[in-house]
Amino acid sequence: MARPGIITLLTDFGLGDPFVGIMKGVILSRFPSAQIIDLTHGIPPQAVSEAAFWLERSHAWFPPGTVHVAVVDPGVGSARPILALEACEQLFLAPDNGLLADRLLASPGARVRALDLDRLALPAPSATFHGRDIFAPVAAGLASGALALDGLGAPAQPRPCVLTPPATDAEAIHGVVITVDRFGNLITNLGRDVAVAEGARYVLLGERAIPIVRTYADAAPGDLVALINAFDVLEVARRDGNAEAHLGLGRGTAVRVPRRGHVVRA
Amino acid sequence: MARPGIITLLTDFGLGDPFVGIMKGVILSRFPSAQIIDLTHGIPPQAVSEAAFWLERSHAWFPPGTVHVAVVDPGVGSARPILALEACEQLFLAPDNGLLADRLLASPGARVRALDLDRLALPAPSATFHGRDIFAPVAAGLASGALALDGLGAPAQPRPCVLTPPATDAEAIHGVVITVDRFGNLITNLGRDVAVAEGARYVLLGERAIPIVRTYADAAPGDLVALINAFDVLEVARRDGNAEAHLGLGRGTAVRVPRRGHVVRA
Amino acid sequence: MARPGIITLLTDFGLGDPFVGIMKGVILSRFPSAQIIDLTHGIPPQAVSEAAFWLERSHAWFPPGTVHVAVVDPGVGSARPILALEACEQLFLAPDNGLLADRLLASPGARVRALDLDRLALPAPSATFHGRDIFAPVAAGLASGALALDGLGAPAQPRPCVLTPPATDAEAIHGVVITVDRFGNLITNLGRDVAVAEGARYVLLGERAIPIVRTYADAAPGDLVALINAFDVLEVARRDGNAEAHLGLGRGTAVRVPRRGHVVRA
Repeated sequence: MARPGIITLLTDFGLGDPFVGIMKGVILSRFPSAQIIDLTHGIPPQAVSEAAFWLERSHAWFPPGTVHVAVVDPGVGSARPILALEACEQLFLAPDNGLLADRLLASPGARVRALDLDRLALPAPSATFHGRDIFAPVAAGLASGALALDGLGAPAQPRPCVLTPPATDAEAIHGVVITVDRFGNLITNLGRDVAVAEGARYVLLGERAIPIVRTYADAAPGDLVALINAFDVLEVARRDGNAEAHLGLGRGTAVRVPRRGHVVRA
Repeated sequence: MARPGIITLLTDFGLGDPFVGIMKGVILSRFPSAQIIDLTHGIPPQAVSEAAFWLERSHAWFPPGTVHVAVVDPGVGSARPILALEACEQLFLAPDNGLLADRLLASPGARVRALDLDRLALPAPSATFHGRDIFAPVAAGLASGALALDGLGAPAQPRPCVLTPPATDAEAIHGVVITVDRFGNLITNLGRDVAVAEGARYVLLGERAIPIVRTYADAAPGDLVALINAFDVLEVARRDGNAEAHLGLGRGTAVRVPRRGHVVRA
Repeated sequence: MARPGIITLLTDFGLGDPFVGIMKGVILSRFPSAQIIDLTHGIPPQAVSEAAFWLERSHAWFPPGTVHVAVVDPGVGSARPILALEACEQLFLAPDNGLLADRLLASPGARVRALDLDRLALPAPSATFHGRDIFAPVAAGLASGALALDGLGAPAQPRPCVLTPPATDAEAIHGVVITVDRFGNLITNLGRDVAVAEGARYVLLGERAIPIVRTYADAAPGDLVALINAFDVLEVARRDGNAEAHLGLGRGTAVRVPRRGHVVRA
């Protein structure tokens, strides 16, 4: 596998404290030429599902051999394992809490290891900051080539991903708002395949029927629209406005796409 | 032109989602040794004027040949062009929505091209994330030297900048609060030239007359002061406090500087 | 001293404006291969004590020879000196306002210089943005090796650090909440040495007695716990929750650890 020396960081630490900066100090101490990219540190505290969603939708935009470090870890300090995954020509480090997407785990050639801390010979980790004490030094080793996946520990069977796929019944496809971006766009787990395969022209959000369009500019200012966004999932947006604030709806809201031949019942 | 390999990013994406991180992944995929600097991603959503203001006031602090990417782009997905500008020994990429300052466009030797997507042979862009699909790869090409300005498209005439210059009448110079920083300082569009040329000793903000001083430390704690800040524009500040919160005034507030011989009428 | 070319930035500027990005432009203009790491820019405006706390607790995670730049500087534009410190195999730049921890200043071999701006031959600084005009170029010079500590100015006696150590009386050790992280954990100035040396099993926060545990996972969801965190200080946390929001307590709250033999009196 290529080793471009790139490490991405995805956490719920925020940027208000030096936690992320300190992880970078540890990485540079072990791999001075690392290129470290913040994927985001704005995952809501302990929101494993949002981290899972964004990691799955983001990783492919990085060069092969990139090491993606995801630390959204309510179980820090407990006995939960830390996993290393090689999949889709990339490397991933994450706690074993359902953060790794099924699509990654099931990809051809995917290999998972559970970190064996005894074998890794790291300084004794703290009980509360494994991002600094375990994830950062292991990421540095993987990115630099000093560590190989097989040297990290034994093969492991990860917990299933916390992301649940959309459900389908006779009348509709049922999804949920996974996250909301800074513009107030409501981003769902409904992929292009399910959301538009049925030729649907509307989605149902709460009691509203919202038309599906191609892009924001296809609507008049203030209009609510649904579209397949740049991550190939359906989102609900308000042209030149904020759908979350306008609708008073956010994460966890149910979304339905009526199946062909079924009447829209808002 | 020099090619230091530096790319700056200025957006309204915020840092709560991985949008900025993904742009960096695309840049590194095409230009592995890029040095990518966040100018800011905190421009209020779709506030083209604030982006225009900060880009004009920031670019000169970077080495010649830096590529500045500005994506505040309410028209994404529409037919609006994307512009590349060479000016002041720097390169700029921005949507054609008035983001590029008149001072840049009118500088000696300035050259503007409208991106010709057919010529650039990029993968088909999404309808909603041109930052990732167009701006990032073109910036990588310009910064690495793989692309030249003249190869991007035909010469173009940009829309005029959304920033309006201060107005002057017999009694006063009239400006506006463009942005507010984290300290609550109200930053205006009144440059040093107009704000102090008349020897004014006060500015008028709403119904208040506020004295012009040299720096914060020239005032007593809690005092309101006006000063020419490090960006050569007039700002209103509260010593050891927050002028925005104290005054209840923010972006868009009118500011007047009385002309010589005219009485301050708050 | 080693020169790994790393510069960390710790400020109260936030990331909503381009101030931090501009400092990086100045650094790269003088030292193109600098590796610049954001420690944090989320220090509350003018909170020198929080900056002092985090700088002391963060610096050791960076390679020897790192240059740490701390700009929390209510006195910008006044005659307050700017200090350069070599201590613990690292370099520090900070205003002389009590930001540098006593532990750094008193470490073996520590050397302090007050910047002599005449000697440094910088362009005339603005009155309001010394981060850009003084700190950034001097940091670039120190990190690149173009400047040596002794060339910056004369030896100086810094102001004492604003952080006050815990106080001890017959019944208890008395500390304070210094900062609160994104998870709502209340982080105190009580170090492991004082907080657990007495074998205490509870801490007193306001009117509550809170048990000391090893890590978050040792408590039931919703429980309040105290623990020695990864920075070797005592923090109060709520398992899977937010202690700050739950308790309605924050920065500045008094914390007591009862001494051996003394009854917990909440």
